Amino acid sequence: MKRTLSITGARTLKAEMHAMGERARVAAAVLREASTESKNNALLAASKAIRADKDKILAANANDMRAGEARGLSPALLDRLRLDGERIEAMAQSAAAVAALPDPVGRELARWMRPNGLDIARVATPIGVLAIIYESRPNVTADAGALCLKSGNAAILRGGSESAHSSAAIHAALIEGLRKASLPEAAIQIVPTIDRAAVGMIFAGLSGAVDLIVPRGGRSLVARVQAEARVPVLAHLEGICHTYVHARADLAKARALVLNAKMRRTGICGATETLLIDRSILSSHLVPILDDLALAGCEIRGDKEVCNAYPSAKPATEEDWRTEYLDAIIAVRVVDGVEEAIRHIATYGSQHTECIVTEDKAAAERFLFALDSAIVLHNASTQFADGGEFGMGAEIGIGTGKLHARGPVGVEQLTIFKYVVRGDGQTRA
Amino acid sequence: MKRTLSITGARTLKAEMHAMGERARVAAAVLREASTESKNNALLAASKAIRADKDKILAANANDMRAGEARGLSPALLDRLRLDGERIEAMAQSAAAVAALPDPVGRELARWMRPNGLDIARVATPIGVLAIIYESRPNVTADAGALCLKSGNAAILRGGSESAHSSAAIHAALIEGLRKASLPEAAIQIVPTIDRAAVGMIFAGLSGAVDLIVPRGGRSLVARVQAEARVPVLAHLEGICHTYVHARADLAKARALVLNAKMRRTGICGATETLLIDRSILSSHLVPILDDLALAGCEIRGDKEVCNAYPSAKPATEEDWRTEYLDAIIAVRVVDGVEEAIRHIATYGSQHTECIVTEDKAAAERFLFALDSAIVLHNASTQFADGGEFGMGAEIGIGTGKLHARGPVGVEQLTIFKYVVRGDGQTRA
Repeated sequence: MKRTLSITGARTLKAEMHAMGERARVAAAVLREASTESKNNALLAASKAIRADKDKILAANANDMRAGEARGLSPALLDRLRLDGERIEAMAQSAAAVAALPDPVGRELARWMRPNGLDIARVATPIGVLAIIYESRPNVTADAGALCLKSGNAAILRGGSESAHSSAAIHAALIEGLRKASLPEAAIQIVPTIDRAAVGMIFAGLSGAVDLIVPRGGRSLVARVQAEARVPVLAHLEGICHTYVHARADLAKARALVLNAKMRRTGICGATETLLIDRSILSSHLVPILDDLALAGCEIRGDKEVCNAYPSAKPATEEDWRTEYLDAIIAVRVVDGVEEAIRHIATYGSQHTECIVTEDKAAAERFLFALDSAIVLHNASTQFADGGEFGMGAEIGIGTGKLHARGPVGVEQLTIFKYVVRGDGQTRA
Repeated sequence: MKRTLSITGARTLKAEMHAMGERARVAAAVLREASTESKNNALLAASKAIRADKDKILAANANDMRAGEARGLSPALLDRLRLDGERIEAMAQSAAAVAALPDPVGRELARWMRPNGLDIARVATPIGVLAIIYESRPNVTADAGALCLKSGNAAILRGGSESAHSSAAIHAALIEGLRKASLPEAAIQIVPTIDRAAVGMIFAGLSGAVDLIVPRGGRSLVARVQAEARVPVLAHLEGICHTYVHARADLAKARALVLNAKMRRTGICGATETLLIDRSILSSHLVPILDDLALAGCEIRGDKEVCNAYPSAKPATEEDWRTEYLDAIIAVRVVDGVEEAIRHIATYGSQHTECIVTEDKAAAERFLFALDSAIVLHNASTQFADGGEFGMGAEIGIGTGKLHARGPVGVEQLTIFKYVVRGDGQTRA
């Protein structure tokens, strides 16, 4: 069944969305019991279909890019939106990589025997129906669809309007995979409209069909989720990530790490947005680090001391400490030791990913212990905040909430569990 | 600082509740870094204080019981509300048992090395500020307070108005424990008013102070949570638990299990509310099982076949299959094999706890696999749905949602995790 990008005919959006929820629920019951083999067959067939459909996907993406340029999307957004042969091949490989992962469903997470002979096992199970709401990056369609399928969950995908054609073309390849494996096509559905009212209906749960919403996006999406969601949300919020160069940082490592953390790719949530540097190494470390950044095309916004030491820096405002630029801009602040760095991050950060650069083990451990962020790193780039880099295969995103899962959300994180208790007639005293 | 049961003076309820949230947030930052020893000291001192305050707690409870009887509370509610020497001793023991549990904070849940040398650890951390909203059982005050403290979370407790005096007396003992261990008293706060508007403010998150709400209660609380909650919720909903007597059930086991599952204590969420029985064993098993129940004072409501086979049964209505009686009433329905039992439970149940009684291993495994409930049991009473019985120490309740934790929620389930990544200068390619 081909789904078009706008609702046609007499059915209202509401009826269409609720029917979608109902189809997802029925599909979820099938997926919950689906064999590992059939799920993997679907993923491998989808991987093939993505490769086979490369030209169609590129044509659809060209459509989206033209429209995006005409609408004046920012370079960061256009970078997220753009597909090329390499990125399509990466999607195909990612679907195959998800097939190669162990099945997260049915894992025995723990098992113990009680003194009364009860045998208790905690066993991983799918969550049910997941709604993934994302923005411009069309590869999320492939990754989210593959991860939901492998974890036995039905997916309702809602990408950004700017990537609608690209996502629809990728979705067609996923459906091809499901069909080849005789799994229900409703296992991965894509919202067939760019009407934002559809998102509100998903937030309301589609009459109880949606078990979990995974929003990935910026502040306006976050605000909407908080105001409207009536079902559980696995938050994937912004990444105001910090790299802190401590007094005992090795200069060569600090230069390489800051440059990579900020500039390797500026549009991803793990990109460093704020650099903190100890006052005691201003004269030795600051200039070379900032020169590297400036040479790479990065705009530097500093506090007063930074501007004094590096006159080409622009003055930072209070707002800069709270900003996820997703662009070649960095905010730079001088601090007085690890405790002040921790305080700054706790005050202004988004509990996503933070790095300390130091050769001082005690300072590193203090930073790693004290910060309540999803990912804390010692002497490693914040751009490692990624499920693939963590060895989890693909990821749906980086969780920044305090429930269920934080950090990269891969197939294991898309499961919940139940307790299976085996007895031989035990009654409770 | 003594808190009274009503807000006095010029401060508004809103200001008081938000100040409570702010105090909790500050306390949570201290608790997150508190040593195992100081948390355990507080719990052991609280345990002592509960014993020492026994007469005060009983007097406060007598107050609540008198008011409850005057208000005409149901026998089930009064049973939940009642304290006696034994139940107070159980609370004291429970606090000490929580002290004896391993500290769930700082556990290394997983650790692996990446090919590039990054050393990745998933480490358990507290969630932050937990708001526990419960109804009549005053021992929840002690259990929830102890579990939150051990797991490094600040607690905001809001019990039912009917148990307000009992809870306040128990809370005083917990505060005594915190004081003895030099931990912030705001680590465990109790909402000092029975004004229901306070619950609405908690649902709204107290200006971002609340990380997680744990509601324990009936349908009206559930409906309110779904309509109003703006922060994550760990649902503890009703338990419409089933015991299914399969064609190959051992009669003696079935009699003992059904009687225990229904009648051991009717007011708890793990009590069986619906009995399903296979048609093929109606003549052999039904009458003895129902006779046991009737003799124990249980009212029996059956479908047509049950009423034919057991004439003293009242006819069940559609509503009975969806009802959590929490009382000496059972609904009984005839089914045709394990698949029909599974369908009934999936349709009418609340995904809490279900048991199959059978000597047929294949039927048992099918039941355990197919049902998507928090706890599924083979030949064991549904009344084992309890953190203590699972060996977790005390519990806050039985989670019935699909996120974070299902089944008994103990100290481990009140933690989340972060990733600690150790490198030596790795940058991302």
